[in-house]
Amino acid sequence: MPSLYLIRHGIAEERGNYEDDTQRPLNDEGRKKTKQVAKRLYDLGLRFDLLQTSPLVRAQQTSDIFADVFGDCPVQRSPELAPEGNFETWLNGITEWVSQQPAKASLGIIGHEPNLTAWAEMLIWGESKGVLVLKKAGIIGISLPETQPWTGNGVLFLSIPPKLLI
Amino acid sequence: MPSLYLIRHGIAEERGNYEDDTQRPLNDEGRKKTKQVAKRLYDLGLRFDLLQTSPLVRAQQTSDIFADVFGDCPVQRSPELAPEGNFETWLNGITEWVSQQPAKASLGIIGHEPNLTAWAEMLIWGESKGVLVLKKAGIIGISLPETQPWTGNGVLFLSIPPKLLI
Repeated sequence: MPSLYLIRHGIAEERGNYEDDTQRPLNDEGRKKTKQVAKRLYDLGLRFDLLQTSPLVRAQQTSDIFADVFGDCPVQRSPELAPEGNFETWLNGITEWVSQQPAKASLGIIGHEPNLTAWAEMLIWGESKGVLVLKKAGIIGISLPETQPWTGNGVLFLSIPPKLLI
Repeated sequence: MPSLYLIRHGIAEERGNYEDDTQRPLNDEGRKKTKQVAKRLYDLGLRFDLLQTSPLVRAQQTSDIFADVFGDCPVQRSPELAPEGNFETWLNGITEWVSQQPAKASLGIIGHEPNLTAWAEMLIWGESKGVLVLKKAGIIGISLPETQPWTGNGVLFLSIPPKLLI
């Protein structure tokens, strides 16, 4: 079964200091903790066949850290992972990608709240009720079924706050 | 908010070797891994104000290991945590207990599948669809609301397979 890992970007600079929110970078704590989390996930055996990231700076910087720790994992920007992204459009894209991969394909996506937990809930229960928590630099893991539809048929096997990975 | 941690008993001896399934003990691997998991959870800062356990031998042995690692944490047998236990009866019992505790009470329960994930799903979504995974010696964490009803109002903040804790 394909595995999907939803990763929230690390702790970023304060919103008020940046006119353009898309340019807001990780702060020192965010860089440090994100690197610790990525290293720990790598040591625990997690691997990604592809890392998709939101194009916003704080997400891209998070994906840079993950790409650095995870070696030659390909990284792809996905506009759908930005805060205004569309679940169905993103889902169509990864469905296409997974169909070209081995059965156990592993996809990591780096993005923002509330989208990530809303999308996780869509995949698990077919609707979003706000019952999952995803802290900055935290991770949620979902097994997707071999066949379509994915929506409402995912299985949650992992949810770890960063403090348990540092 | 009160926290509920659902912990599945460790790996036990094969079913065929025991006429009475309630007497089936942990095997060597189960004892070793359960101890590693308990120590790691302790090191990560988890604490329990009460540990409830199924009366079956493999669950009690798991609770013995947790009680040993977590020091003076009180342990209570609950017949409702046995495989034939009743969700509503158990829920009434812990509702009563939590009402007598500080706001951040932390309760650990040690039991069996499929009950633990079914009960977790009841608390989170108000129904059980089999969309959570809980491996032996794995843990799921749920925040419960300050007010009733708890069913359908829990928030899942943690789900860790034992291999990520060893």
